[in-house]
Amino acid sequence: MPTYRLVVEYDGTDFAGLQFQPGERTIAGEVERALGNLFVEPIHVTSAGRTDAGVHASGQVLSFRAERSFPTERLGISLNANLPPDISVRHAELAPERFSARFDALRRTYEYRVFNRPLRSARDARFAHHVYKPVDRALLADAARDLLGQHDFVSFCGVLPDRGTTVRTIHAIDVRESEGATFVIAISGLGFLHRMVRIGVGTLLEIATGRRAPGDIPAILAARDRKRAGYTAPACGLTLTRVDYDGFSSAS
Amino acid sequence: MPTYRLVVEYDGTDFAGLQFQPGERTIAGEVERALGNLFVEPIHVTSAGRTDAGVHASGQVLSFRAERSFPTERLGISLNANLPPDISVRHAELAPERFSARFDALRRTYEYRVFNRPLRSARDARFAHHVYKPVDRALLADAARDLLGQHDFVSFCGVLPDRGTTVRTIHAIDVRESEGATFVIAISGLGFLHRMVRIGVGTLLEIATGRRAPGDIPAILAARDRKRAGYTAPACGLTLTRVDYDGFSSAS
Repeated sequence: MPTYRLVVEYDGTDFAGLQFQPGERTIAGEVERALGNLFVEPIHVTSAGRTDAGVHASGQVLSFRAERSFPTERLGISLNANLPPDISVRHAELAPERFSARFDALRRTYEYRVFNRPLRSARDARFAHHVYKPVDRALLADAARDLLGQHDFVSFCGVLPDRGTTVRTIHAIDVRESEGATFVIAISGLGFLHRMVRIGVGTLLEIATGRRAPGDIPAILAARDRKRAGYTAPACGLTLTRVDYDGFSSAS
Repeated sequence: MPTYRLVVEYDGTDFAGLQFQPGERTIAGEVERALGNLFVEPIHVTSAGRTDAGVHASGQVLSFRAERSFPTERLGISLNANLPPDISVRHAELAPERFSARFDALRRTYEYRVFNRPLRSARDARFAHHVYKPVDRALLADAARDLLGQHDFVSFCGVLPDRGTTVRTIHAIDVRESEGATFVIAISGLGFLHRMVRIGVGTLLEIATGRRAPGDIPAILAARDRKRAGYTAPACGLTLTRVDYDGFSSAS
Protein backbone atom coordinates (compact mmCIF):
# COMPACT_ATOMS: atom_id res chain seq x y z
CA MET A 1 0.00 0.00 0.00
CA PRO A 2 1.68 3.23 -1.14
CA THR A 3 1.84 6.16 1.31
CA TYR A 4 1.46 9.68 -0.07
CA ARG A 5 2.02 13.11 1.36
CA LEU A 6 0.45 16.37 0.29
CA VAL A 7 1.37 19.97 1.08
CA VAL A 8 -1.93 21.79 1.28
CA GLU A 9 -2.86 25.47 1.37
CA TYR A 10 -6.24 26.89 2.37
CA ASP A 11 -8.18 30.00 3.14
CA GLY A 12 -9.87 28.72 6.31
CA THR A 13 -12.49 31.50 6.47
CA ASP A 14 -15.39 29.40 5.24
CA PHE A 15 -14.44 26.07 6.86
CA ALA A 16 -15.48 24.50 10.16
CA GLY A 17 -11.82 23.52 10.66
CA LEU A 18 -9.55 20.79 9.41
CA GLN A 19 -11.00 17.68 11.00
CA PHE A 20 -13.82 15.73 9.32
CA GLN A 21 -17.24 16.40 10.91
CA PRO A 22 -20.39 15.00 9.34
CA GLY A 23 -22.53 17.71 7.74
CA GLU A 24 -19.81 20.39 8.09
CA ARG A 25 -17.55 21.87 5.44
CA THR A 26 -14.05 20.82 6.59
CA ILE A 27 -10.60 20.63 4.97
CA ALA A 28 -10.26 16.88 5.61
CA GLY A 29 -13.79 16.29 4.33
CA GLU A 30 -13.10 18.11 1.05
CA VAL A 31 -9.68 16.48 0.51
CA GLU A 32 -11.02 12.99 1.31
CA ARG A 33 -13.88 13.53 -1.14
CA ALA A 34 -11.43 14.63 -3.88
CA LEU A 35 -9.10 11.69 -3.13
CA GLY A 36 -12.08 9.31 -3.23
CA ASN A 37 -12.82 10.55 -6.77
CA LEU A 38 -9.27 9.84 -7.95
CA PHE A 39 -8.44 6.63 -6.08
CA VAL A 40 -11.98 5.20 -6.29
CA GLU A 41 -11.77 3.95 -2.70
CA PRO A 42 -12.44 5.56 0.68
CA ILE A 43 -9.33 7.47 1.83
CA HIS A 44 -8.59 8.69 5.33
CA VAL A 45 -6.08 11.55 5.70
CA THR A 46 -3.84 12.29 8.69
CA SER A 47 -2.83 15.91 9.26
CA ALA A 48 0.23 17.58 10.78
CA GLY A 49 -1.97 20.13 12.59
CA ARG A 50 -5.69 20.14 13.40
CA THR A 51 -6.41 23.76 12.56
CA ASP A 52 -9.58 25.24 14.08
CA ALA A 53 -12.49 26.85 12.23
CA GLY A 54 -11.29 29.98 10.40
CA VAL A 55 -7.57 29.17 10.73
CA HIS A 56 -5.57 29.09 7.47
CA ALA A 57 -2.63 27.07 6.17
CA SER A 58 0.05 27.65 3.58
CA GLY A 59 2.08 24.57 4.53
CA GLN A 60 -0.27 22.00 6.06
CA VAL A 61 0.87 18.40 5.50
CA LEU A 62 -1.56 15.52 4.98
CA SER A 63 -0.63 11.85 4.60
CA PHE A 64 -2.70 8.88 3.49
CA ARG A 65 -2.38 5.33 2.29
CA ALA A 66 -4.28 3.83 -0.63
CA GLU A 67 -4.87 0.36 -2.06
CA ARG A 68 -4.39 1.68 -5.58
CA SER A 69 -1.67 4.00 -6.79
CA PHE A 70 -2.02 7.21 -8.78
CA PRO A 71 0.71 8.83 -10.93
CA THR A 72 2.31 11.34 -8.55
CA GLU A 73 3.20 13.77 -11.36
CA ARG A 74 -0.55 14.22 -12.04
CA LEU A 75 -1.80 13.92 -8.46
CA GLY A 76 -1.53 17.62 -7.50
CA ILE A 77 -3.22 18.98 -10.61
CA SER A 78 -5.94 16.29 -10.53
CA LEU A 79 -6.68 16.99 -6.87
CA ASN A 80 -6.84 20.75 -7.49
CA ALA A 81 -9.37 20.14 -10.25
CA ASN A 82 -11.49 18.26 -7.68
CA LEU A 83 -11.10 20.76 -4.83
CA PRO A 84 -12.98 24.03 -4.19
CA PRO A 85 -11.11 27.31 -4.88
CA ASP A 86 -10.30 27.88 -1.20
CA ILE A 87 -8.20 24.68 -0.90
CA SER A 88 -5.21 23.85 -3.09
CA VAL A 89 -2.51 21.21 -3.15
CA ARG A 90 0.93 22.79 -3.52
CA HIS A 91 2.90 19.56 -3.70
CA ALA A 92 2.11 15.83 -3.87
CA GLU A 93 4.55 12.93 -3.67
CA LEU A 94 5.09 9.36 -2.53
CA ALA A 95 6.29 9.28 1.07
CA PRO A 96 8.38 6.68 2.88
CA GLU A 97 6.30 3.62 3.79
CA ARG A 98 4.02 4.25 6.80
CA PHE A 99 4.94 7.95 6.91
CA SER A 100 2.56 9.85 9.20
CA ALA A 101 2.05 13.59 8.74
CA ARG A 102 1.13 13.74 12.43
CA PHE A 103 3.52 11.43 14.26
CA ASP A 104 6.64 12.04 12.16
CA ALA A 105 6.47 15.86 12.40
CA LEU A 106 9.48 17.35 14.22
CA ARG A 107 8.46 20.99 14.25
CA ARG A 108 5.34 23.00 13.40
CA THR A 109 5.43 26.73 12.62
CA TYR A 110 2.44 29.03 12.87
CA GLU A 111 2.37 32.66 11.83
CA TYR A 112 -0.05 35.15 13.34
CA ARG A 113 -0.63 38.32 11.24
CA VAL A 114 -1.67 41.56 12.90
CA PHE A 115 -2.88 44.60 10.97
CA ASN A 116 -2.07 47.56 13.21
CA ARG A 117 -3.58 50.87 12.11
CA PRO A 118 -6.55 52.84 13.47
CA LEU A 119 -8.69 52.15 10.38
CA ARG A 120 -9.39 48.54 9.39
CA SER A 121 -8.33 47.01 6.04
CA ALA A 122 -10.80 45.41 3.61
CA ARG A 123 -8.07 43.59 1.71
CA ASP A 124 -6.40 42.15 4.82
CA ALA A 125 -9.67 41.24 6.56
CA ARG A 126 -9.46 37.50 5.76
CA PHE A 127 -5.83 36.97 6.78
CA ALA A 128 -5.04 39.41 9.59
CA HIS A 129 -6.37 40.47 12.99
CA HIS A 130 -7.09 44.20 13.12
CA VAL A 131 -5.69 45.90 16.23
CA TYR A 132 -6.48 49.60 16.16
CA LYS A 133 -4.39 50.63 19.20
CA PRO A 134 -0.65 51.09 18.58
CA VAL A 135 1.29 47.88 19.28
CA ASP A 136 4.75 48.32 20.78
CA ARG A 137 6.74 45.69 18.86
CA ALA A 138 9.78 45.86 21.18
CA LEU A 139 7.57 45.26 24.23
CA LEU A 140 5.88 42.42 22.38
CA ALA A 141 9.17 40.76 21.42
CA ASP A 142 10.46 41.06 25.02
CA ALA A 143 7.33 39.50 26.52
CA ALA A 144 7.36 36.77 23.86
CA ARG A 145 10.75 35.59 25.14
CA ASP A 146 9.07 34.64 28.44
CA LEU A 147 7.06 32.01 26.53
CA LEU A 148 10.17 30.38 25.02
CA GLY A 149 11.22 26.95 26.20
CA GLN A 150 9.42 24.22 28.13
CA HIS A 151 6.48 25.17 30.36
CA ASP A 152 3.16 23.87 31.57
CA PHE A 153 0.99 25.92 29.18
CA VAL A 154 -2.34 25.00 30.80
CA SER A 155 -3.06 28.73 31.38
CA PHE A 156 -2.91 29.11 27.58
CA CYS A 157 -5.12 26.13 26.78
CA GLY A 158 -8.69 26.16 25.44
CA VAL A 159 -10.12 22.63 25.66
CA LEU A 160 -7.88 20.44 27.81
CA PRO A 161 -6.44 17.31 26.15
CA ASP A 162 -8.26 14.03 26.97
CA ARG A 163 -5.08 12.62 28.44
CA GLY A 164 -1.41 13.41 28.80
CA THR A 165 0.55 16.42 29.85
CA THR A 166 -0.08 20.10 29.22
CA VAL A 167 3.67 20.70 29.14
CA ARG A 168 4.85 21.94 25.75
CA THR A 169 8.04 23.49 24.37
CA ILE A 170 8.20 26.63 22.23
CA HIS A 171 11.39 26.43 20.18
CA ALA A 172 11.24 29.88 18.59
CA ILE A 173 9.06 32.97 18.69
CA ASP A 174 9.87 35.92 16.44
CA VAL A 175 8.22 39.20 15.59
CA ARG A 176 8.85 40.63 12.13
CA GLU A 177 7.46 43.51 10.11
CA SER A 178 5.51 42.71 6.94
CA GLU A 179 4.13 45.09 4.28
CA GLY A 180 2.55 48.35 5.39
CA ALA A 181 0.89 48.25 8.78
CA THR A 182 1.13 44.46 9.10
CA PHE A 183 3.45 42.49 11.36
CA VAL A 184 3.81 38.78 11.97
CA ILE A 185 4.44 36.71 15.11
CA ALA A 186 5.99 33.36 14.12
CA ILE A 187 5.91 30.52 16.68
CA SER A 188 7.56 27.10 16.34
CA GLY A 189 7.32 23.99 18.47
CA LEU A 190 6.80 20.26 18.26
CA GLY A 191 3.15 20.62 19.23
CA PHE A 192 0.68 23.04 20.78
CA LEU A 193 -2.33 22.78 23.06
CA HIS A 194 -5.81 23.72 21.80
CA ARG A 195 -5.85 27.51 21.07
CA MET A 196 -2.41 27.89 22.71
CA VAL A 197 -1.02 30.07 19.91
CA ARG A 198 -4.08 32.32 19.79
CA ILE A 199 -4.27 32.77 23.58
CA GLY A 200 -0.51 33.42 23.64
CA VAL A 201 -0.85 36.06 20.92
CA GLY A 202 -3.87 37.65 22.63
CA THR A 203 -1.93 37.91 25.89
CA LEU A 204 1.15 39.36 24.15
CA LEU A 205 -1.05 41.94 22.38
CA GLU A 206 -2.56 43.00 25.73
CA ILE A 207 0.98 43.60 27.01
CA ALA A 208 2.11 45.39 23.84
CA THR A 209 -0.90 47.76 23.86
CA GLY A 210 -0.45 48.66 27.53
CA ARG A 211 -3.48 46.83 28.88
CA ARG A 212 -1.33 44.47 30.95
CA ALA A 213 2.08 44.70 32.68
CA PRO A 214 5.15 43.79 30.57
CA GLY A 215 6.37 41.15 33.04
CA ASP A 216 3.08 39.24 33.41
CA ILE A 217 3.87 36.06 31.46
CA PRO A 218 5.83 34.13 34.15
CA ALA A 219 3.04 34.69 36.72
CA ILE A 220 0.39 33.58 34.21
CA LEU A 221 2.34 30.38 33.46
CA ALA A 222 2.80 29.71 37.19
CA ALA A 223 -0.91 30.27 37.95
CA ARG A 224 -2.00 27.30 35.76
CA ASP A 225 -5.32 29.09 35.23
CA ARG A 226 -6.80 30.00 31.83
CA LYS A 227 -8.55 33.02 33.39
CA ARG A 228 -5.19 34.64 34.14
CA ALA A 229 -4.15 34.76 30.46
CA GLY A 230 -5.46 37.19 27.85
CA TYR A 231 -8.09 36.99 25.13
CA THR A 232 -8.08 34.41 22.36
CA ALA A 233 -6.84 36.29 19.29
CA PRO A 234 -9.26 35.63 16.40
CA ALA A 235 -8.78 32.68 14.04
CA CYS A 236 -8.45 34.86 10.91
CA GLY A 237 -4.91 35.98 11.83
CA LEU A 238 -3.49 32.46 12.20
CA THR A 239 -1.80 30.39 9.48
CA LEU A 240 0.04 27.05 9.72
CA THR A 241 2.99 27.90 7.47
CA ARG A 242 5.48 25.07 7.84
CA VAL A 243 5.96 21.56 9.13
CA ASP A 244 9.42 20.00 9.32
CA TYR A 245 10.20 16.29 9.10
CA ASP A 246 13.42 14.36 8.87
CA GLY A 247 14.51 15.21 5.31
CA PHE A 248 11.31 17.05 4.28
CA SER A 249 9.81 20.48 4.90
CA SER A 250 6.53 21.94 3.73
CA ALA A 251 7.77 25.55 3.59
CA SER A 252 7.06 27.31 0.32
CA MET B 1 -20.67 73.20 0.94
CA PRO B 2 -17.61 71.32 2.19
CA THR B 3 -15.83 68.91 -0.20
CA TYR B 4 -14.37 65.69 1.20
CA ARG B 5 -12.04 63.07 -0.17
CA LEU B 6 -11.72 59.46 0.87
CA VAL B 7 -9.02 56.88 0.16
CA VAL B 8 -10.88 53.61 -0.15
CA GLU B 9 -9.74 49.99 -0.24
CA TYR B 10 -11.84 47.03 -1.34
CA ASP B 11 -11.83 43.35 -2.16
CA GLY B 12 -13.80 43.61 -5.41
CA THR B 13 -14.58 39.87 -5.64
CA ASP B 14 -18.20 40.13 -4.55
CA PHE B 15 -19.06 43.49 -6.17
CA ALA B 16 -20.63 44.31 -9.53
CA GLY B 17 -18.00 47.06 -9.89
CA LEU B 18 -17.56 50.57 -8.59
CA GLN B 19 -20.35 52.48 -10.28
CA PHE B 20 -23.84 52.67 -8.74
CA GLN B 21 -26.32 50.33 -10.47
CA PRO B 22 -29.82 49.87 -9.04
CA GLY B 23 -30.29 46.42 -7.50
CA GLU B 24 -26.56 45.55 -7.70
CA ARG B 25 -23.97 45.45 -4.94
CA THR B 26 -21.48 48.16 -5.96
CA ILE B 27 -18.72 50.11 -4.20
CA ALA B 28 -20.35 53.50 -4.87
CA GLY B 29 -23.72 52.14 -3.74
CA GLU B 30 -22.32 50.92 -0.41
CA VAL B 31 -20.28 54.07 0.24
CA GLU B 32 -23.20 56.37 -0.66
CA ARG B 33 -25.47 54.40 1.68
CA ALA B 34 -22.92 54.70 4.54
CA LEU B 35 -22.43 58.44 3.84
CA GLY B 36 -26.21 58.91 3.79
CA ASN B 37 -26.35 57.43 7.32
CA LEU B 38 -23.75 59.87 8.63
CA PHE B 39 -24.63 63.06 6.76
CA VAL B 40 -28.42 62.44 6.80
CA GLU B 41 -28.74 63.66 3.21
CA PRO B 42 -28.32 61.97 -0.17
CA ILE B 43 -24.64 61.97 -1.16
CA HIS B 44 -23.22 61.35 -4.62
CA VAL B 45 -19.58 60.22 -4.85
CA THR B 46 -17.17 60.80 -7.75
CA SER B 47 -14.39 58.24 -8.23
CA ALA B 48 -10.85 58.44 -9.61
CA GLY B 49 -11.32 55.14 -11.47
CA ARG B 50 -14.44 53.20 -12.44
CA THR B 51 -13.20 49.73 -11.58
CA ASP B 52 -15.07 46.81 -13.21
CA ALA B 53 -16.78 43.91 -11.46
CA GLY B 54 -14.21 41.84 -9.55
CA VAL B 55 -11.44 44.48 -9.73
CA HIS B 56 -9.91 45.55 -6.40
CA ALA B 57 -8.51 48.79 -5.01
CA SER B 58 -6.03 49.66 -2.30
CA GLY B 59 -5.88 53.37 -3.21
CA GLN B 60 -9.16 54.36 -4.86
CA VAL B 61 -10.09 58.01 -4.30
CA LEU B 62 -13.68 59.19 -3.90
CA SER B 63 -14.83 62.79 -3.53
CA PHE B 64 -18.19 64.25 -2.55
CA ARG B 65 -19.82 67.44 -1.38
CA ALA B 66 -22.35 67.71 1.45
CA GLU B 67 -24.71 70.34 2.81
CA ARG B 68 -23.77 69.44 6.36
CA SER B 69 -20.28 68.84 7.72
CA PHE B 70 -18.99 65.90 9.72
CA PRO B 71 -15.89 65.91 12.00
CA THR B 72 -13.11 64.62 9.71
CA GLU B 73 -11.22 62.97 12.60
CA ARG B 74 -14.19 60.65 13.13
CA LEU B 75 -15.28 60.28 9.50
CA GLY B 76 -13.06 57.27 8.58
CA ILE B 77 -13.92 55.20 11.65
CA SER B 78 -17.64 56.08 11.42
CA LEU B 79 -17.76 55.14 7.74
CA ASN B 80 -15.96 51.84 8.41
CA ALA B 81 -18.55 51.00 11.05
CA ASN B 82 -21.23 51.53 8.37
CA LEU B 83 -19.47 49.63 5.56
CA PRO B 84 -19.33 45.86 4.90
CA PRO B 85 -16.05 44.04 5.71
CA ASP B 86 -14.92 44.02 2.07
CA ILE B 87 -14.79 47.85 1.81
CA SER B 88 -12.77 50.09 4.11
CA VAL B 89 -11.86 53.75 4.24
CA ARG B 90 -8.11 54.21 4.77
CA HIS B 91 -8.12 57.98 4.98
CA ALA B 92 -10.75 60.75 5.08
CA GLU B 93 -10.19 64.49 4.95
CA LEU B 94 -11.55 67.85 3.80
CA ALA B 95 -10.41 68.57 0.24
CA PRO B 96 -9.92 71.90 -1.52
CA GLU B 97 -13.24 73.44 -2.55
CA ARG B 98 -14.73 71.76 -5.65
CA PHE B 99 -12.02 69.06 -5.66
CA SER B 100 -12.96 66.22 -8.01
CA ALA B 101 -11.47 62.74 -7.54
CA ARG B 102 -12.02 62.20 -11.26
CA PHE B 103 -11.12 65.44 -13.03
CA ASP B 104 -8.22 66.51 -10.80
CA ALA B 105 -6.37 63.17 -11.01
CA LEU B 106 -2.96 63.49 -12.67
CA ARG B 107 -1.93 59.85 -12.72
CA ARG B 108 -3.57 56.51 -11.96
CA THR B 109 -1.57 53.37 -11.14
CA TYR B 110 -2.92 49.85 -11.48
CA GLU B 111 -1.11 46.70 -10.41
CA TYR B 112 -1.80 43.33 -11.97
CA ARG B 113 -0.73 40.31 -9.87
CA VAL B 114 0.14 37.01 -11.53
CA PHE B 115 0.62 33.77 -9.61
CA ASN B 116 2.95 31.69 -11.78
CA ARG B 117 3.33 28.08 -10.72
CA PRO B 118 1.90 24.86 -12.18
CA LEU B 119 -0.41 24.30 -9.18
CA ARG B 120 -2.92 27.00 -8.25
CA SER B 121 -2.95 28.81 -4.88
CA ALA B 122 -6.00 28.86 -2.57
CA ARG B 123 -4.70 31.81 -0.57
CA ASP B 124 -3.89 33.94 -3.64
CA ALA B 125 -7.10 33.04 -5.52
CA ARG B 126 -8.90 36.33 -4.76
CA PHE B 127 -6.05 38.69 -5.63
CA ALA B 128 -3.98 37.05 -8.38
CA HIS B 129 -4.44 35.50 -11.82
CA HIS B 130 -3.08 31.95 -11.93
CA VAL B 131 -0.87 31.26 -14.97
CA TYR B 132 0.38 27.69 -14.89
CA LYS B 133 2.81 27.95 -17.83
CA PRO B 134 6.22 29.50 -17.06
CA VAL B 135 6.21 33.25 -17.73
CA ASP B 136 9.46 34.70 -19.08
CA ARG B 137 9.71 37.95 -17.10
CA ALA B 138 12.48 39.42 -19.31
CA LEU B 139 10.40 38.81 -22.45
CA LEU B 140 7.39 40.33 -20.70
CA ALA B 141 9.30 43.45 -19.64
CA ASP B 142 10.70 43.91 -23.17
CA ALA B 143 7.27 43.61 -24.81
CA ALA B 144 5.77 45.93 -22.18
CA ARG B 145 8.08 48.72 -23.34
CA ASP B 146 6.28 48.70 -26.72
CA LEU B 147 3.12 49.87 -24.91
CA LEU B 148 4.86 52.86 -23.30
CA GLY B 149 4.02 56.36 -24.47
CA GLN B 150 1.14 57.77 -26.51
CA HIS B 151 -0.78 55.44 -28.85
CA ASP B 152 -4.25 54.83 -30.20
CA PHE B 153 -5.12 51.92 -27.88
CA VAL B 154 -8.37 50.98 -29.62
CA SER B 155 -7.02 47.43 -30.21
CA PHE B 156 -6.84 47.14 -26.40
CA CYS B 157 -10.32 48.52 -25.72
CA GLY B 158 -13.40 46.63 -24.52
CA VAL B 159 -16.44 48.89 -24.83
CA LEU B 160 -15.59 51.96 -26.94
CA PRO B 161 -16.07 55.35 -25.26
CA ASP B 162 -19.29 57.22 -26.17
CA ARG B 163 -17.27 60.10 -27.53
CA GLY B 164 -13.70 61.34 -27.73
CA THR B 165 -10.43 59.83 -28.68
CA THR B 166 -9.07 56.32 -28.02
CA VAL B 167 -5.56 57.78 -27.80
CA ARG B 168 -4.04 57.30 -24.34
CA THR B 169 -0.57 57.62 -22.81
CA ILE B 170 1.12 55.01 -20.64
CA HIS B 171 3.65 56.82 -18.47
CA ALA B 172 5.26 53.78 -16.85
CA ILE B 173 5.03 50.01 -16.99
CA ASP B 174 7.16 47.90 -14.68
CA VAL B 175 7.45 44.22 -13.85
CA ARG B 176 8.58 43.29 -10.35
CA GLU B 177 8.83 40.09 -8.35
CA SER B 178 6.62 39.72 -5.27
CA GLU B 179 6.57 36.93 -2.63
CA GLY B 180 6.98 33.34 -3.78
CA ALA B 181 5.64 32.59 -7.23
CA THR B 182 3.89 35.96 -7.59
CA PHE B 183 4.93 38.88 -9.77
CA VAL B 184 3.32 42.24 -10.42
CA ILE B 185 2.90 44.37 -13.55
CA ALA B 186 2.43 48.03 -12.55
CA ILE B 187 0.98 50.42 -15.14
CA SER B 188 0.58 54.20 -14.77
CA GLY B 189 -1.16 56.75 -16.96
CA LEU B 190 -3.56 59.66 -16.80
CA GLY B 191 -6.44 57.46 -17.90
CA PHE B 192 -7.22 54.14 -19.52
CA LEU B 193 -9.84 52.79 -21.94
CA HIS B 194 -12.35 50.17 -20.80
CA ARG B 195 -10.44 46.92 -20.02
CA MET B 196 -7.25 48.39 -21.51
CA VAL B 197 -5.03 47.24 -18.64
CA ARG B 198 -6.48 43.71 -18.61
CA ILE B 199 -6.24 43.28 -22.40
CA GLY B 200 -2.70 44.68 -22.32
CA VAL B 201 -1.72 42.23 -19.57
CA GLY B 202 -3.40 39.30 -21.39
CA THR B 203 -1.48 40.14 -24.56
CA LEU B 204 1.84 40.48 -22.69
CA LEU B 205 1.24 37.12 -20.98
CA GLU B 206 0.64 35.47 -24.37
CA ILE B 207 4.02 36.82 -25.51
CA ALA B 208 5.79 35.85 -22.28
CA THR B 209 4.47 32.26 -22.39
CA GLY B 210 5.48 31.76 -26.03
CA ARG B 211 1.98 31.76 -27.53
CA ARG B 212 2.66 34.92 -29.52
CA ALA B 213 5.74 36.51 -31.13
CA PRO B 214 7.80 38.86 -28.90
CA GLY B 215 7.57 41.78 -31.35
CA ASP B 216 3.78 41.68 -31.86
CA ILE B 217 2.73 44.80 -29.94
CA PRO B 218 3.50 47.50 -32.57
CA ALA B 219 1.52 45.59 -35.24
CA ILE B 220 -1.44 45.12 -32.84
CA LEU B 221 -1.46 48.86 -32.05
CA ALA B 222 -1.26 49.72 -35.78
CA ALA B 223 -4.10 47.33 -36.68
CA ARG B 224 -6.68 49.26 -34.57
CA ASP B 225 -8.59 46.00 -34.14
CA ARG B 226 -9.52 44.40 -30.79
CA LYS B 227 -9.39 40.94 -32.39
CA ARG B 228 -5.64 41.32 -32.98
CA ALA B 229 -4.84 41.71 -29.25
CA GLY B 230 -4.80 38.92 -26.67
CA TYR B 231 -7.24 37.70 -24.06
CA THR B 232 -8.69 39.87 -21.31
CA ALA B 233 -6.77 38.88 -18.18
CA PRO B 234 -9.29 38.14 -15.39
CA ALA B 235 -10.51 40.88 -13.04
CA CYS B 236 -9.21 39.16 -9.88
CA GLY B 237 -5.58 40.08 -10.67
CA LEU B 238 -6.19 43.82 -11.01
CA THR B 239 -5.95 46.44 -8.24
CA LEU B 240 -6.11 50.24 -8.46
CA THR B 241 -3.24 51.04 -6.08
CA ARG B 242 -2.59 54.75 -6.38
CA VAL B 243 -3.96 58.01 -7.68
CA ASP B 244 -1.82 61.15 -7.75
CA TYR B 245 -3.11 64.73 -7.55
CA ASP B 246 -1.37 68.06 -7.21
CA GLY B 247 -0.16 67.85 -3.59
CA PHE B 248 -1.96 64.62 -2.68
CA SER B 249 -1.42 60.90 -3.33
CA SER B 250 -3.50 57.92 -2.26
CA ALA B 251 -0.55 55.51 -2.01
CA SER B 252 -0.38 53.61 1.26
